[in-house]
Amino acid sequence: MSADHASGLETQTGFRFAARTAGVRRSALREILKVTEMPEIISFAGGLPAPELFPVEELADAAQAVFRDEGAAALQYSTSEGHAPLREWVCEYLLETAGLSLAPDQVLIVSGSQQGLDLIAKVLIDPGDSVVCEDPAYLGALQAFRSYQAHVIGLPADSEGLRVDELRSLLRGAARRPKLLYLVTNFQNPTGTTLSAPRRREIAETAAEFGLPILEDDPYCSLRYEGDRMPALAASPGARDCLYLGTASKVLAPGLRVAWIAAPDRGVYERLVRAKQACDLHTASFNQRMVANYVRRPGVLAAHIARLCRIYGERRQAMLGALARELPPGSAWTHPRGGLFVWVRLPDTIDTETLLPEALRRRVAFVPGASFWTNGDVRSTLRLNFSNASPARIETGVRRLAEAIRCAHAYPSSGPEPVLEARL
Amino acid sequence: MSADHASGLETQTGFRFAARTAGVRRSALREILKVTEMPEIISFAGGLPAPELFPVEELADAAQAVFRDEGAAALQYSTSEGHAPLREWVCEYLLETAGLSLAPDQVLIVSGSQQGLDLIAKVLIDPGDSVVCEDPAYLGALQAFRSYQAHVIGLPADSEGLRVDELRSLLRGAARRPKLLYLVTNFQNPTGTTLSAPRRREIAETAAEFGLPILEDDPYCSLRYEGDRMPALAASPGARDCLYLGTASKVLAPGLRVAWIAAPDRGVYERLVRAKQACDLHTASFNQRMVANYVRRPGVLAAHIARLCRIYGERRQAMLGALARELPPGSAWTHPRGGLFVWVRLPDTIDTETLLPEALRRRVAFVPGASFWTNGDVRSTLRLNFSNASPARIETGVRRLAEAIRCAHAYPSSGPEPVLEARL
Repeated sequence: MSADHASGLETQTGFRFAARTAGVRRSALREILKVTEMPEIISFAGGLPAPELFPVEELADAAQAVFRDEGAAALQYSTSEGHAPLREWVCEYLLETAGLSLAPDQVLIVSGSQQGLDLIAKVLIDPGDSVVCEDPAYLGALQAFRSYQAHVIGLPADSEGLRVDELRSLLRGAARRPKLLYLVTNFQNPTGTTLSAPRRREIAETAAEFGLPILEDDPYCSLRYEGDRMPALAASPGARDCLYLGTASKVLAPGLRVAWIAAPDRGVYERLVRAKQACDLHTASFNQRMVANYVRRPGVLAAHIARLCRIYGERRQAMLGALARELPPGSAWTHPRGGLFVWVRLPDTIDTETLLPEALRRRVAFVPGASFWTNGDVRSTLRLNFSNASPARIETGVRRLAEAIRCAHAYPSSGPEPVLEARL
Repeated sequence: MSADHASGLETQTGFRFAARTAGVRRSALREILKVTEMPEIISFAGGLPAPELFPVEELADAAQAVFRDEGAAALQYSTSEGHAPLREWVCEYLLETAGLSLAPDQVLIVSGSQQGLDLIAKVLIDPGDSVVCEDPAYLGALQAFRSYQAHVIGLPADSEGLRVDELRSLLRGAARRPKLLYLVTNFQNPTGTTLSAPRRREIAETAAEFGLPILEDDPYCSLRYEGDRMPALAASPGARDCLYLGTASKVLAPGLRVAWIAAPDRGVYERLVRAKQACDLHTASFNQRMVANYVRRPGVLAAHIARLCRIYGERRQAMLGALARELPPGSAWTHPRGGLFVWVRLPDTIDTETLLPEALRRRVAFVPGASFWTNGDVRSTLRLNFSNASPARIETGVRRLAEAIRCAHAYPSSGPEPVLEARL
């Protein structure tokens, strides 16, 4: 309550808020995005797919076919579980992309991955329960878990992903078993790291040994630009009690809000369906049918994904090349094999929250790493998105970023400042 | 947990569910709907708009215009608050239909009214808090409140709506002030009753006096077939701390999942936006723009609503006429001036849950009243929907229902039976 008083939001009303609202802040990232929408700014801040690559015409065709052939059904209420033909296709896609063999009645269609996170948290988390994740971790997931008053425990990760020794040591020492282990296994947000095959097996076995359920969030699996696809962690031989989250947002379009939870466990599935009913009845019938129509067009999705991978792959190369040319000694960055992000660590003297206004003055934007950390809070880190600018703009943007860094380096900050409010 | 063990859902897994899941059951109503989808059954069970009246062609036009003129934006992520032009239109619509004068930054676009209920509950309800409503009340709202472990207190209503004396007496005697008063003010679901103008004023004043916030849920306000439109309760001179929920589901199409919360209070609005971010980021950009495009076509929505009112009005007349001809002495029913439902009370000896299988054998369906009661549980009540069948089918359906009642009357049930499971 005190925080809200401080922000000046509180007025004299009869409204008394639930305790859980105290933990929920607006996502700093989404607030930054508002500033960086100006066209003169080269933004590496968002996690947005490139809008010029959306398959607008094919989706318009799919929409017209739905209106023509199933208009009334697409506009009517529908079942909470989701449109049956879409769930059938999701099963084929899960098998192909993640090696997961599931039946349609184990798939729940949701309104974007974020709703998947919310429903899973709603079903599993009591106030004070803990959720284990990598540190740094995806902000939207932290926000969803915290909105149910979860205590988030971030564990160290390296170039192969979450460290198993840290997980074992946490589980051995835990007075109360955590409710969930949350992982983005491919091209993680924010680091771009992919959990290695041995780690997948070891984590699956460790979690099974300690009875810890896993939520595998895999929005980027089809956006691979290098190396071979790996089966999902949830497809490991030793895995049990896994939930798997997939989405059409990154391969098709986020504005449709179509995603899916794969929940092999019957009891969990039933509870998720009930929670979905109470939350929003069902995902928009029209959107589900439009996506189902689109993905059933022979070869269309595969060709679209191939195009995305070619173009995003070029952009990734442009960014990695520019970082190598431009960043000062003492910097390090990840080498993502897919997805949308590169994670950068600058020399320790640089605080990226202080760097951001400097960068914005030079018309380049990024997300300071601090938001993504749960424990570590390494203030010299930042996240760069490469999917949403041409190679030429990426090169210009990284040059501008390097200038801002040089400037910050020359005049080191006198310590952490409360710049967030002033900046926005 | 015991209930779940009994239902056979529990398996040996590491999943441990949140306490709040214990209170959430699948909606009995939605389960009944699955059975009654067979075309040979005349169903008065749903709350569905008539699919043959959906403006399919106009919406297809709107969709094409959106793809053509703003395709990339409609497929991209967007702000949690909602599409600005849609929020501007909502303000005009609120003024016209409810007498509410609000600014776009007091309007939050949500994915259907059900999500509005969920977000409001998430922001206001701590476990054990109480919510006051009419008895009987809308099932989806009860489900949303209970999913946050609210204690729902149903108060008696009469032909003018919620009784103010009962509300005052509850508030005077309450050890802890309830968090919310929930009301469907026009053509209530399930009873079809409209809160009278004097009652609106008295309830607004009483709630203000006791510092009790009000959630006014008004999905049917444009579907009026008789009498004059009244300003919303939230527009009463004495009203304060009101939230107002509206939707495109009943006048346009539920399958698009577009609705809105009007929240004049800044602190509440901010919390609702944050909760929306954590729940599903934003309502589908495409759907918001399609609706915005449709409602901006001059005269189109007004003509569509006029057509709905004419046809639904005829159906209402057909049902009221048939009930007067067919129902046995000792029956009573409401005379709704709009909306989708008539509420029926049969002679006391009849239990409508026992009556339902008898009715289904005669190929007619309804929803037993028991589901809607929070305290009263008058087992001789039932809800009939009249929007989704032609006058001729309504007359046949009511004849079949009357036959089932005569049969149940001749062989009175030997007491309450656990028919719910067997029936589904």
